[in-house]
Amino acid sequence: MPHPLGLITLLTDFGDQDSFVASMKGVILTINPQVSFVDLSHQVPPHSVEEAAYLLKSCYQYFPEGTVHLAVVDPGVGSARRPLLVKTARYYFLGPDNGLFSHMLKDEDEVEVREIENQQYRLESVGHTFDGRDLFAPSAAWLAKGAPPSSFGRVIHDPVTLSVVEPHRQGNRLVGRIEHVDRFGNLISNLTPQHILDFQSSAGQQELILHIGGHTLEGLVASYSEGLSDRPAALINSHGRVEVFLNSKSAAQHLRVGVGGEIHLC
Amino acid sequence: MPHPLGLITLLTDFGDQDSFVASMKGVILTINPQVSFVDLSHQVPPHSVEEAAYLLKSCYQYFPEGTVHLAVVDPGVGSARRPLLVKTARYYFLGPDNGLFSHMLKDEDEVEVREIENQQYRLESVGHTFDGRDLFAPSAAWLAKGAPPSSFGRVIHDPVTLSVVEPHRQGNRLVGRIEHVDRFGNLISNLTPQHILDFQSSAGQQELILHIGGHTLEGLVASYSEGLSDRPAALINSHGRVEVFLNSKSAAQHLRVGVGGEIHLC
Amino acid sequence: MPHPLGLITLLTDFGDQDSFVASMKGVILTINPQVSFVDLSHQVPPHSVEEAAYLLKSCYQYFPEGTVHLAVVDPGVGSARRPLLVKTARYYFLGPDNGLFSHMLKDEDEVEVREIENQQYRLESVGHTFDGRDLFAPSAAWLAKGAPPSSFGRVIHDPVTLSVVEPHRQGNRLVGRIEHVDRFGNLISNLTPQHILDFQSSAGQQELILHIGGHTLEGLVASYSEGLSDRPAALINSHGRVEVFLNSKSAAQHLRVGVGGEIHLC
Repeated sequence: MPHPLGLITLLTDFGDQDSFVASMKGVILTINPQVSFVDLSHQVPPHSVEEAAYLLKSCYQYFPEGTVHLAVVDPGVGSARRPLLVKTARYYFLGPDNGLFSHMLKDEDEVEVREIENQQYRLESVGHTFDGRDLFAPSAAWLAKGAPPSSFGRVIHDPVTLSVVEPHRQGNRLVGRIEHVDRFGNLISNLTPQHILDFQSSAGQQELILHIGGHTLEGLVASYSEGLSDRPAALINSHGRVEVFLNSKSAAQHLRVGVGGEIHLC
Repeated sequence: MPHPLGLITLLTDFGDQDSFVASMKGVILTINPQVSFVDLSHQVPPHSVEEAAYLLKSCYQYFPEGTVHLAVVDPGVGSARRPLLVKTARYYFLGPDNGLFSHMLKDEDEVEVREIENQQYRLESVGHTFDGRDLFAPSAAWLAKGAPPSSFGRVIHDPVTLSVVEPHRQGNRLVGRIEHVDRFGNLISNLTPQHILDFQSSAGQQELILHIGGHTLEGLVASYSEGLSDRPAALINSHGRVEVFLNSKSAAQHLRVGVGGEIHLC
Repeated sequence: MPHPLGLITLLTDFGDQDSFVASMKGVILTINPQVSFVDLSHQVPPHSVEEAAYLLKSCYQYFPEGTVHLAVVDPGVGSARRPLLVKTARYYFLGPDNGLFSHMLKDEDEVEVREIENQQYRLESVGHTFDGRDLFAPSAAWLAKGAPPSSFGRVIHDPVTLSVVEPHRQGNRLVGRIEHVDRFGNLISNLTPQHILDFQSSAGQQELILHIGGHTLEGLVASYSEGLSDRPAALINSHGRVEVFLNSKSAAQHLRVGVGGEIHLC
């Protein structure tokens, strides 16, 4: 069972020009002055649940056990969508029931999902437009302070999950998908080393050929510095995914490929 | 009387590409290693005192008692404008005397304004261009460490205040003003539920009609999710103001209305 | 000898839309839960070692003794470039061996440079693309926890340094260089008050004339508020450098001068 450390991470689409995030932190510190914060990102594109789910997946497991991960990308705020507390063997997750936690629900052990119903964990407020401040922030503060998950509300068994696109066979190819474009313009796919091994063993071949954006890439390199600035290359990145890059340039711009683009393993 | 918690919030127009904010935090931590920070925003448009005053007003009251709110949007740095310490029943505010604290001076109890004169709270420095680092940061650090307000300088009674634009009657209409556009393109006005009640009772009507940007809005909705993506709607937002929005789109772009734009209650 | 305070600053080119920085903080907090962070900036232009070196120089000395300055702008990640630990009389610096620490190597006392070789300070990870998370973050965490520098690796004597451009004489002029453009569009040069004094004494004159971007500036002012919005002026800034500005406008836009541009002292 996880033990709260007083560490809360925050992931939102609130940007950095308004005071939304600061309000949430103020509410939390008023309830729980000992807490520390780490900002995951507040630059999620507005309302992009899929992007937020990707970002959370890419870093939550690097935090200490007992960390409270608070994610507020919430296009349905004020509607009937449920506020959730997800407990796993190692972490807590708090946020709206819209698929933000799809990856953890699949990957983590001892998952228990509850609807946050306890009105004592809710701030009295005007309006119903800012659950980040009025419901999720105080809930995170109490949770990090030791309030037991069972006090938040009843267990539910039907949380919303995003439909995760897995690589699929198309003739003699394996078709992957670009899931994220990072700041450097690197293209991160949903292909893993295991996909490559399985494909090669089923196809009985050892060469590795990738097609993306009209380019053909042969083999993988081990690091960015082995790539060229005028020819895209691929490597296994720090999350264990096939990533296409140009050395010191944007592969996204060069190849004109973005999130949702295809990458073919031949 | 407020009690310092060692919590300092920072609001500036310094952006995030320079080292201005980091320098301030380093100075503070050198004097007071126990302090915690919350960044309100550093993306205030350069020199926009009005926008900074709005942001501060929108979130300062969510912080614990004794919080030191440090605001450095300071087009007059190096001139004769005074550096201020404002003490209220619940908070401290530090910043230049240019109207940043207009709302607190009006709204808070037990307001006491002092000019920061004590040279011991000033960093020895080259130049007179960065009072954020050389004067306000060390002052905040000492204040959060327990230095009494009276040690900073003498009480003054004529702090600069912004002229706050209140809604006004124009014929049989009440004319409000857009005070802020948030990241989502929502238009936040200076109209409150009380304005609406007063207007309706004086006009002897119960319908609520709003005009903005050539559009007519009938009634209020309770949350964003009740709005449509192709027709603007209005609600009472999380600060108790009338806010015009489009569901999952930018009302500012759609209506071509920005800060200073009019909204009419008919 | 510096004493670790459990304070780590972070400077990267990772931006704020990905989870790179959060991953590093999570790794650090897992090893060393007591640590505090200050973000210097994560908006260094991708791969710009020179800009990162400038930002670090402009603020590191405002932090308490024993601060660990962690800088990850690392175009050579995965190549043979060495990971470094630099110890000075007052601070620690961690980052790749690419010139990031050129200024400290020159300016600080008791400099000792080590290559980070100890595999125990490295995270087990997939890929070789994210040393910020897998090598530098855990190294910083252990260092801030009290691990002795000698345990990291052997002393080296040939760290990479950037070629720093110093002002030079050209006929009867001294030619300086714009080293940084800040958020406000202010142009910060490599000219110091000492350069001006030396130039004036050697030229036997007392007037101060500056040429930049086709404009002639006479004398220096003491603060931004003494400048005009339609005529550029110069002052000695908060880092002791000659800085060209327009009051409340961008000198960079007005003069069409950027990093690398010339400023002439006549």
